[in-house]
Amino acid sequence: MIIVLRPDATQEQIKHIVEKVKKLGLKPMISRGTERTIIGVIGEEDIIRVQPLEVFPGVEKVMPILKPFKLVSRDFKKEDTVIDLGNNVKIGGKRLIMMAGPCSVENRKVLLKTAKAVKKAGATVLRGGAYKPRTSPYSFQGLGEKGLKMLAEARKETGLLIVTEIMDTKDVALFEKYADIVQVGARNMQNFNLLKEVGKMSRPVLLKRGMSSTIKEFLMSAEYILSEGNFNVILCERGIRTFEDYTRFTLDVNAIPAIKSLSHLPIIVDPSHATGKWGLVPAASRAAVAAGCDGLIVEVHPNPEEALSDGTQSLLPEKFEALMQELRKVAEAVGREI
Amino acid sequence: MIIVLRPDATQEQIKHIVEKVKKLGLKPMISRGTERTIIGVIGEEDIIRVQPLEVFPGVEKVMPILKPFKLVSRDFKKEDTVIDLGNNVKIGGKRLIMMAGPCSVENRKVLLKTAKAVKKAGATVLRGGAYKPRTSPYSFQGLGEKGLKMLAEARKETGLLIVTEIMDTKDVALFEKYADIVQVGARNMQNFNLLKEVGKMSRPVLLKRGMSSTIKEFLMSAEYILSEGNFNVILCERGIRTFEDYTRFTLDVNAIPAIKSLSHLPIIVDPSHATGKWGLVPAASRAAVAAGCDGLIVEVHPNPEEALSDGTQSLLPEKFEALMQELRKVAEAVGREI
Amino acid sequence: MIIVLRPDATQEQIKHIVEKVKKLGLKPMISRGTERTIIGVIGEEDIIRVQPLEVFPGVEKVMPILKPFKLVSRDFKKEDTVIDLGNNVKIGGKRLIMMAGPCSVENRKVLLKTAKAVKKAGATVLRGGAYKPRTSPYSFQGLGEKGLKMLAEARKETGLLIVTEIMDTKDVALFEKYADIVQVGARNMQNFNLLKEVGKMSRPVLLKRGMSSTIKEFLMSAEYILSEGNFNVILCERGIRTFEDYTRFTLDVNAIPAIKSLSHLPIIVDPSHATGKWGLVPAASRAAVAAGCDGLIVEVHPNPEEALSDGTQSLLPEKFEALMQELRKVAEAVGREI
Amino acid sequence: MIIVLRPDATQEQIKHIVEKVKKLGLKPMISRGTERTIIGVIGEEDIIRVQPLEVFPGVEKVMPILKPFKLVSRDFKKEDTVIDLGNNVKIGGKRLIMMAGPCSVENRKVLLKTAKAVKKAGATVLRGGAYKPRTSPYSFQGLGEKGLKMLAEARKETGLLIVTEIMDTKDVALFEKYADIVQVGARNMQNFNLLKEVGKMSRPVLLKRGMSSTIKEFLMSAEYILSEGNFNVILCERGIRTFEDYTRFTLDVNAIPAIKSLSHLPIIVDPSHATGKWGLVPAASRAAVAAGCDGLIVEVHPNPEEALSDGTQSLLPEKFEALMQELRKVAEAVGREI
Repeated sequence: MIIVLRPDATQEQIKHIVEKVKKLGLKPMISRGTERTIIGVIGEEDIIRVQPLEVFPGVEKVMPILKPFKLVSRDFKKEDTVIDLGNNVKIGGKRLIMMAGPCSVENRKVLLKTAKAVKKAGATVLRGGAYKPRTSPYSFQGLGEKGLKMLAEARKETGLLIVTEIMDTKDVALFEKYADIVQVGARNMQNFNLLKEVGKMSRPVLLKRGMSSTIKEFLMSAEYILSEGNFNVILCERGIRTFEDYTRFTLDVNAIPAIKSLSHLPIIVDPSHATGKWGLVPAASRAAVAAGCDGLIVEVHPNPEEALSDGTQSLLPEKFEALMQELRKVAEAVGREI
Repeated sequence: MIIVLRPDATQEQIKHIVEKVKKLGLKPMISRGTERTIIGVIGEEDIIRVQPLEVFPGVEKVMPILKPFKLVSRDFKKEDTVIDLGNNVKIGGKRLIMMAGPCSVENRKVLLKTAKAVKKAGATVLRGGAYKPRTSPYSFQGLGEKGLKMLAEARKETGLLIVTEIMDTKDVALFEKYADIVQVGARNMQNFNLLKEVGKMSRPVLLKRGMSSTIKEFLMSAEYILSEGNFNVILCERGIRTFEDYTRFTLDVNAIPAIKSLSHLPIIVDPSHATGKWGLVPAASRAAVAAGCDGLIVEVHPNPEEALSDGTQSLLPEKFEALMQELRKVAEAVGREI
Repeated sequence: MIIVLRPDATQEQIKHIVEKVKKLGLKPMISRGTERTIIGVIGEEDIIRVQPLEVFPGVEKVMPILKPFKLVSRDFKKEDTVIDLGNNVKIGGKRLIMMAGPCSVENRKVLLKTAKAVKKAGATVLRGGAYKPRTSPYSFQGLGEKGLKMLAEARKETGLLIVTEIMDTKDVALFEKYADIVQVGARNMQNFNLLKEVGKMSRPVLLKRGMSSTIKEFLMSAEYILSEGNFNVILCERGIRTFEDYTRFTLDVNAIPAIKSLSHLPIIVDPSHATGKWGLVPAASRAAVAAGCDGLIVEVHPNPEEALSDGTQSLLPEKFEALMQELRKVAEAVGREI
Repeated sequence: MIIVLRPDATQEQIKHIVEKVKKLGLKPMISRGTERTIIGVIGEEDIIRVQPLEVFPGVEKVMPILKPFKLVSRDFKKEDTVIDLGNNVKIGGKRLIMMAGPCSVENRKVLLKTAKAVKKAGATVLRGGAYKPRTSPYSFQGLGEKGLKMLAEARKETGLLIVTEIMDTKDVALFEKYADIVQVGARNMQNFNLLKEVGKMSRPVLLKRGMSSTIKEFLMSAEYILSEGNFNVILCERGIRTFEDYTRFTLDVNAIPAIKSLSHLPIIVDPSHATGKWGLVPAASRAAVAAGCDGLIVEVHPNPEEALSDGTQSLLPEKFEALMQELRKVAEAVGREI
């Protein structure tokens, strides 16, 4: 931690800060520059990070030296984390994992039809929401446990793994029972109670980036889960909110290599939400694979005209199959496989 | 709802859309322009809003005519909502309501000291967090029920009302017991399960705007609460996330008159989070009052150097008292009182 | 400047950096922490600021200590700058300066009518664009020199000072002749050639903040003008671009006290562009005055229905007059006058 | 154009609007819905676009149907524009064009060394700034005409084409003489006078997207150039400004397929500015190629430690060569070639 003093900081103020630092068991180092005096603080940065040093008289600003996350960091674990999702499906290695399915579980028939189609195209995980976070209280809110049961049935029939979103701490037991991967949605990325609860679960967690979360905040939310003991976290970039309004969100493709350099956790991309337009999904998917992601989660619906949510960003099964062909080539070009 | 067709839309495609619209019990009106054909849809817009018409072949875009919120809207209720908070304190009328206190409840002594100071300065509501949403799992997470009890004690001793943040649906009973106003924080503005639960509570709700939520989304989240039967919702603008990094957030002062024109609900401002720097809090507070807000919620701490959270944005009690003097003049200048 | 090294930085790499720093005539100070080694650099920070030290092997990041601006800084000049605009009108002191007029100069008659109306209401500066930056090449582009002449005529007839926007370095002589205050628009805030040219002019400059410029970048653009010798710069906050789309821009009211603390230059606010809706202009104007700005620049048009640009954000003269009444009270409440 | 009326609009107000529309030579169509009356306007939308209809009494909002750009639009020209840059280098076809070189021209020796290296790696265009837009007036501002001459010499020696940035309308003749492609930088994307001038030039123009410009505004700026007669415009996505601060900007990879669907113009990507970190450039470059861009413009410097600008985002020549190998594979995977 570096404490930068104001040009008019007095000796007394400096002494006051130095004493505070020492009282915390840390070692202050004063350095007098041409225009500013600064105090370097040596020791456990976490101790001082939580201190409001900026309010001390004479302080201009405080600059942290270290990253605030630990367990998710590459410094903590050098090699890539590979997570065994079950059914011999592993994420984080050479093979990319394709997750696909409808935005929400609507009925048995459509779900099974979609599941079979995405499996045929090469997906190994079925996505589908039973509990849906909707902007409007008057929109379809999901089928709840009934939807989870349909997902379990689809798993039984196709052998696909199931990823589905949890929205409430009280549903943990249900998700332990029905889900293979528990998704925490973008709107709940800083629902810290939920993070702590999924951190105690036995299932891998798919954590979506909040729509206006920085990479650091995203990793801090993952840190919550790891700090409770669950190290099987898959990160998911799903587009951030910007001023651009032609697309629903802006896919932050930079975040893929950035997170790969900062963390050992696998990262996938959701090109459906990141664009909001099915016509842009293929290009966004190819970009994500070329940038080095470990998988994709794509919305597929056999009849988007009838979808109860997100129809405009869902691919038809045949478009998804064509996309898979394209992605196999791109994956190979970057030394991966699908 | 207006459906704009592509320049190359075929007769068949138009027929297909028209039939869909009719099947929904709505009336389509076709209008052929110089460069585009458009279809106006007459009837309950809510029915068609949830249809993914954009995926129909031949459709270029779909434009809603009406606002998606109802109960929170000025169209629904013309006059300002005035909420009785208890103790003869009413928000939404001529008198501005000042809420103040520490970011988090840390210990009995500090809390009582702060409570007395803010009461003396003219506040009628004491703020303080017992459950704290913190970016890092290693930061102070709040005292929990113990903190709620301290707040209740402070109420007993000072007569101040209590506003404090709920973070989990499972804590509803606790908050019914201890809180006068239940706060839903910015990070939970789209925690829809929590919105539904506080919508069933008997307490007024203070709903903070999400850091990257549009005004419309903010009002839709309030709509969730009202749609469950709780009409006593106080909105709170607390700064939005922008590219500017000198301040912690950007106070969206435009939102005050904008929300006043769109909704009948009272709106207050949190100048502490909206700036992140105590030195900017007085100017932001004066701006908020001049723009027409119904109250403020301000962080005050008798010893920011020792605060366990948000010390850099907390005012000393004497600065808060001075600010109250300033605000009384500004309030009077705009026909209000404090 | 602080150079933070990677945890795996070698002795050789550290030596290499230390030598580089010494070669620049600066003094390196090495400090070995628990997890990181850092090198403090003492001496003229400007010398090292332009060095790409981040690319040196072993470097994790480089953190500047000092602000990059000098002449515009409060450190350089403690007291507020008061600029004499002519006609005994001074900006930066106790009295707020009101600038008002149409978005663009359209014709003699409308301009004179507006000028008289805003003068009557209490404005001392007439705004109006002769050269207009328009998003579309097919929109009205302004009357050019003809418009400047009309402005000069309005000045002669009313005694109002003239502020009008320059868009091209080749027009400097024209603006010396016709304008009392030369405006550099938001879209040209980083047109550095233009900044240098107005920096050589004898006229005060009104510099608008770019729609996505940070406060630091804004001050750096002002620094360009001062560094060429023209110290008479008025800053203007006019709304920044954010995700919020209900308003045209988001008025960054925090920027007023922030800039007041960082710089000695006067700052005004443009509530018309900052909101984009005339109905929100009064509240935004009151907020700006309450926050401590030194003046406003407001769009006023006697017949917005016929305005060739920005009609939706222009006030009618009678609304402007009513606003002036409100603002006088707010100004008084904060110890200023209009 | 669709005019949506307020629920309380009177017959008189409607009549007033209808008359205005007719007076403009357009045809109004009134449609009375359940909650709102709307007026569709048929005819040349451009005529009505510039009218401030939103200020008419009784109007709630006005919604345009058509896109505001014409000449740059796919509606205007179906097939992709292929631009002949000279030397048999064409952009917009199957082959991707690689532009590379230093941020700024610093001296003859470094420039030639870089030029030879990037040519050897497969680039066909040399980039390098002689006039540099720098945030600080105290930073290196470029060599001016001397730099242009060095670029011309490098062209002579290597056969590479030259792309370099123009910053002032008064330099047009110089750029006609020395440049093969004239670059308009992000900070000048809405310097409309400059756009008009390059629109009259004989050279192809490389137009960079403004850091906070929407796709629509970007295309409107291109429209300025085409409307002056110069149809040889290459668009360049170079990252947009968002709240994310780990990277310098956020590469908007969605913009590539979005612009391809809206416009016939070729689009390239600048991965150096879009990331600001050389370590992220390869992944961003691969993503851009996979998403369908027509080329890249990459900063390469043989000695980033000594670069006078943008050293932290420049690739070493050997890294650039390795990247080219990667990109050839990705290009092939998406049916293109380099």
